[in-house]
Amino acid sequence: MKLSYREYVLRLRHTFAIARGSVDTKQVLIVLLEHDGIVGYGEAAPSSRYGETSDTVKAFLGRVKLEWFDNPFQLESILSQVDSISEGNYSAKAAIDIALHDWMGKRLGLPLHELWGLNRTMTPQTSFTIGIDKPEILAQKIEEAEQYPILKIKLGTDDDQSIMSTIRMATKKVLRVDANEGWKRKETAVEKIKWLEQQGVEFVEQPMPASDLDGTAWVRERVNLPLIADEDCVRYHDVPRLQKAFDGINIKLMKCTGLREAMKMIHTARACRMKVMLGCMIETSLAITAAAQLSPLIDYADLDGNLLITNDPFIGVRVKEGKLELPDRPGIGITEK
Amino acid sequence: MKLSYREYVLRLRHTFAIARGSVDTKQVLIVLLEHDGIVGYGEAAPSSRYGETSDTVKAFLGRVKLEWFDNPFQLESILSQVDSISEGNYSAKAAIDIALHDWMGKRLGLPLHELWGLNRTMTPQTSFTIGIDKPEILAQKIEEAEQYPILKIKLGTDDDQSIMSTIRMATKKVLRVDANEGWKRKETAVEKIKWLEQQGVEFVEQPMPASDLDGTAWVRERVNLPLIADEDCVRYHDVPRLQKAFDGINIKLMKCTGLREAMKMIHTARACRMKVMLGCMIETSLAITAAAQLSPLIDYADLDGNLLITNDPFIGVRVKEGKLELPDRPGIGITEK
Repeated sequence: MKLSYREYVLRLRHTFAIARGSVDTKQVLIVLLEHDGIVGYGEAAPSSRYGETSDTVKAFLGRVKLEWFDNPFQLESILSQVDSISEGNYSAKAAIDIALHDWMGKRLGLPLHELWGLNRTMTPQTSFTIGIDKPEILAQKIEEAEQYPILKIKLGTDDDQSIMSTIRMATKKVLRVDANEGWKRKETAVEKIKWLEQQGVEFVEQPMPASDLDGTAWVRERVNLPLIADEDCVRYHDVPRLQKAFDGINIKLMKCTGLREAMKMIHTARACRMKVMLGCMIETSLAITAAAQLSPLIDYADLDGNLLITNDPFIGVRVKEGKLELPDRPGIGITEK
Repeated sequence: MKLSYREYVLRLRHTFAIARGSVDTKQVLIVLLEHDGIVGYGEAAPSSRYGETSDTVKAFLGRVKLEWFDNPFQLESILSQVDSISEGNYSAKAAIDIALHDWMGKRLGLPLHELWGLNRTMTPQTSFTIGIDKPEILAQKIEEAEQYPILKIKLGTDDDQSIMSTIRMATKKVLRVDANEGWKRKETAVEKIKWLEQQGVEFVEQPMPASDLDGTAWVRERVNLPLIADEDCVRYHDVPRLQKAFDGINIKLMKCTGLREAMKMIHTARACRMKVMLGCMIETSLAITAAAQLSPLIDYADLDGNLLITNDPFIGVRVKEGKLELPDRPGIGITEK
């Protein structure tokens, strides 16, 4: 097995702002895994929130010795070995996981959802994310998002009330709220969420800083909207202890090291009777389509990272009236533009 | 998809006795699922402990309408529909799950472990079960079990001490103990387990009656041997709450409705940092080999149901110095004798 990579700078349609900062571009790495005449594609979209940059991804990929393995079908052993190289490096690990899955699907001539026994008609609608912005830009973004029936609103700032008012003036769509750990006091979180309950909001993601599970559990007892763990839910060992504070989890390939662990997290969350959301970073249609292959198993999709950029190098999953439409090609099912 | 079945009466080499009763024969059903020229094989080995008999299996199979589905790859949808027909009927559901997996593997030309990304060299050793018996028969059984390096001893009776003494006189092998809910008082369980700690025992299965998790947790605080849930662990929703009382779970296809749910249980148990054991009922090499396909993921195998019978109609997994050796054929990998 041979591993190589290319770097891409993704350009965002709008400056993308959330509670902890803003960006205009995003660096990702496309990984190619070649074996036996077949090339599997993977992607790393590193996030500084989890200590990664494109440089850490490149350094990690340099330490991966796939030539130790002669059979890409041995995913469990290969990915365990890759995981053991060092802590963290989630997106770099995800790139290898995705490429191995793409390779396997191509080798068998099967789309991943079919390999996993899933029904392509069961995909959910995806939300479309509206980053933090000035009122006039927010109104423009809502207009541009006309084709998406569910919007995800980034809050967690001092301007939450004016952002929501601007958005509610512009649309009656279902809204999901992501506070990105922005409410630092549990009393603030309760107050904000009680107010959001009146605004036609479906759920709230990560109201409190990660690791404050007691605070979040306290909030949860006092509000009616479901709470979904994002920054608190990185890998599968995190899931069981989140039961006491959250109603569901947001799984992202770039946090959890890829499709194989994402599947384990879905199963664990279901066993714990929790809701499952699949989210993303700013990333190309490659990683988005890989995640979408799992989406027949989930409740809420937020797979819009590719919709926020202007130079997506791939074609993969499509969105029709909000619903994810999986390609009918082997593996992830992407093609280069 | 067409479903049919055959009935078999398995004959036991020795009368098989555990804490709650004994048997000389066991009725199982072999299910055939035919689609597109390929036949997938499944097996139901019903257990009265879970309210099943060969008649309930036949009645359940009569209610399954697989003609609603045109694609056996849609395992998740098909098995959800089958599961929703009625409560219970675990082994009947498992027969369909196993047959669908066998079909899929045969269609793709892949053994199941390879389809799941597992490494066939990572299979564990299986234990061999010694049922409750008189001292002279126990000694004979230990002799017959010479080739198996790990023995599982059935206890949970008033004769536990004499059974263990007889066995320890005959062998120095690693012993695992299964009490099958036989110790009714928590003080008895602690006393028995403290004594077993001196007898070279690796772990104890289901010391207390199922559902007494508080009692089992009380026992666990007072003993040093790991406790494994069997009768307390039926399906995947059971797993998270077992954390507080047990160190691991025993998964059986005939309890959990098959391979797909068994995989979900393995992932959930790992997320909960619990040990995983794969067990069985008295069953043919068909269901044993199906379970063995998952065994590269587990800690402890007790896949010996086929070794206890004299008229196994199939050839599948083999045992070499205790280690499970998976066949290299597509699907489950069994052939008829």
